[in-house]
Amino acid sequence: MSMVSGKMQVLLQNNSVVRAMFEEGNRLAAIYGRENVYDFSLGNPNVPAPEAVNQAIRDVLREKDSVYVHGYMSNAGYPEVRRAVADSLNQRFGTAYTENNLVMTVGAAYAMNILLKTILNPGDEVIVIAPFFSEYRNYIGNYDGKTVVVKADPETFQPDPEAVGRAVTPRTRALIINTPNNPSGVVYSEETLKELNRVLTQKEKEFGTVILTISDEPYRELAYDGVRVPWIPSLIPHSCVVYSYSKALSLPGERIGWLLVPDTVPEAEDVTAAAVIANRISGAVNAPSLIQLALSRCLGEKCDVEAYDRNRKLLYNGLKDLGFTCVKPQGAFYLFVKAPDGDDAHFFEACKKYNILVVPCTSFAWPGYVRIAYCVSYDMIQRALPFFAKVAEDCGLKKS
Amino acid sequence: MSMVSGKMQVLLQNNSVVRAMFEEGNRLAAIYGRENVYDFSLGNPNVPAPEAVNQAIRDVLREKDSVYVHGYMSNAGYPEVRRAVADSLNQRFGTAYTENNLVMTVGAAYAMNILLKTILNPGDEVIVIAPFFSEYRNYIGNYDGKTVVVKADPETFQPDPEAVGRAVTPRTRALIINTPNNPSGVVYSEETLKELNRVLTQKEKEFGTVILTISDEPYRELAYDGVRVPWIPSLIPHSCVVYSYSKALSLPGERIGWLLVPDTVPEAEDVTAAAVIANRISGAVNAPSLIQLALSRCLGEKCDVEAYDRNRKLLYNGLKDLGFTCVKPQGAFYLFVKAPDGDDAHFFEACKKYNILVVPCTSFAWPGYVRIAYCVSYDMIQRALPFFAKVAEDCGLKKS
Repeated sequence: MSMVSGKMQVLLQNNSVVRAMFEEGNRLAAIYGRENVYDFSLGNPNVPAPEAVNQAIRDVLREKDSVYVHGYMSNAGYPEVRRAVADSLNQRFGTAYTENNLVMTVGAAYAMNILLKTILNPGDEVIVIAPFFSEYRNYIGNYDGKTVVVKADPETFQPDPEAVGRAVTPRTRALIINTPNNPSGVVYSEETLKELNRVLTQKEKEFGTVILTISDEPYRELAYDGVRVPWIPSLIPHSCVVYSYSKALSLPGERIGWLLVPDTVPEAEDVTAAAVIANRISGAVNAPSLIQLALSRCLGEKCDVEAYDRNRKLLYNGLKDLGFTCVKPQGAFYLFVKAPDGDDAHFFEACKKYNILVVPCTSFAWPGYVRIAYCVSYDMIQRALPFFAKVAEDCGLKKS
Repeated sequence: MSMVSGKMQVLLQNNSVVRAMFEEGNRLAAIYGRENVYDFSLGNPNVPAPEAVNQAIRDVLREKDSVYVHGYMSNAGYPEVRRAVADSLNQRFGTAYTENNLVMTVGAAYAMNILLKTILNPGDEVIVIAPFFSEYRNYIGNYDGKTVVVKADPETFQPDPEAVGRAVTPRTRALIINTPNNPSGVVYSEETLKELNRVLTQKEKEFGTVILTISDEPYRELAYDGVRVPWIPSLIPHSCVVYSYSKALSLPGERIGWLLVPDTVPEAEDVTAAAVIANRISGAVNAPSLIQLALSRCLGEKCDVEAYDRNRKLLYNGLKDLGFTCVKPQGAFYLFVKAPDGDDAHFFEACKKYNILVVPCTSFAWPGYVRIAYCVSYDMIQRALPFFAKVAEDCGLKKS
């Protein structure tokens, strides 16, 4: 008999490709020196958190009582923090949320987990739009849900509402969307989202069900070229938002985010109450306290999006010039690049030969592409480009 | 069709008694004023974190690079933090752990969750010793395990090894122990633990299984009268420890702790690797980064245990003098008090009449008792005692 459960045995054998890369990057760095490894694998922001965050942490420690700062609060989070977040959303999106619509969580990933735990019965189906963040499959599997993959339009990488409609069954409980998208960098358009809502509403009527759209928004603040990221609940009333400050404020290690359950969600009060219980019993209990308090003072802050934009242009133009086919990213910090021979495993190996680490997108349900995270230093991209040139040569690409 | 899953519906209807008390305390405080409510319901430390913790936070922010401090690290936690924790354990307990035995987690509750996720197949049985922290039932249920309750000795509140042995079946995967105990305050003796190990080892041989003891140790540092809290893995080789700094350093809101998988656990490497994956996919991803780093500089620190000890003596002696029957606590910060008429719901109501909030222990699988958390101000206990006197009178108790 094995010590490890059946479910976890499978995962032990197919561990996260992204995380394996992260460990591989550290291994290579130890051998060749950090400066000779071009690790584009993980979405770990290189841009530092705004100084205002550290200042807010110091201020909270100085001004507030230690028992308040480090103590338990309601499992949903400090009411005053939730109120500050609600106010900030209301200002930005013309909404009317209150603290009762919000649950502070250990990041967006945990927010999605407690929401899935709240709504899924075993065997329920959750639609995801490929390409998608590979962890969704695990999150859905945690609650014995079934992941149903619907491909995005292969030209625009926008979701295909008709295809989503065709995938809906009476067991469909939710649809996960992620815009700006990881890994494609595409921002879903208002038009697409409206059409998606139309199709979902029609299917809800047909089956007498509610299909909850879960909008995973860690990259909301990272959009370029003036592209507007639509506010999902305004377009899809049956939607919840899971949000994280990991990328918006460069705090991925701190695990801070929230779940928003708008009043337009059927039984919103019960959903929120159950999510608060799930927040507690899944073991996190509450979002980290000091960071909650500090964060509530930094809601107007942004990380240096310009830095990502410079990286984006350098890398996108650099790779295009070398003859690679890339999706032009409008948001997030990923470049989605076609494998020259259509095999992402080959492309991965071709890159690794020069200590360049990229993520093969078979794990994002989009074989034939790799993901290149450009949340790295501008300098590293500059130094990596000559090696990408060698990769292009090895792959027989022609400069444009 | 309900929005909330079947499993969560049940929990919505039977929400945590302890947490309900916490919210009730806040409600009463809003009506009567905080100073007129005697809230003994939640284990939320009143003793502040050692100033060294806040200093360490400031130092880390000043000395270290922001991207390192707030960024992703290995899902198991910063290797240097795990090394510091291992060294500290080795010094205290004469062990030889390394960073590979440790996974930093969002508190002990999350550590227990990822361990249960790692080892439980649906229908597997987990033995718990009553009285026990009511959340264990939820944690086990999260992975479709079955909670098997074995009563402690009703005189000493020590586990009864023979009774545990009788409860073991071929489906028994784990035993959860908690010493110093919540809610009884009892510290399990070395003798009891050795006997427990003998019985478990015998049952493992009989059934050809491994029964993992999970030692939940948030209260390890809170022991009084010079009582030594035995180090479980030295007595029970097939055991893991889940630990939290919530009580040891008064940081319950920060959600910081760890899982220890000693090499004496069969397939220890696989168990650890699977737990690291569970740490990631359950949504927390990693323990909060800044607090990890700050904590690793405070491993020699302790909160003011003397303050709890003063509270303990005041409350224990005070209630004894009023004629109540209490278990004398050797650890943690709970007093376990017998309901005068044997009905904890009655006792709860009798206390609430005077705005005293205590937790009826039916929810801890020990009806007829209430739990009084004395991690409150000395002053509040002093002010509450005259009202406890009225409760005693109402209950017809005679002063000793």
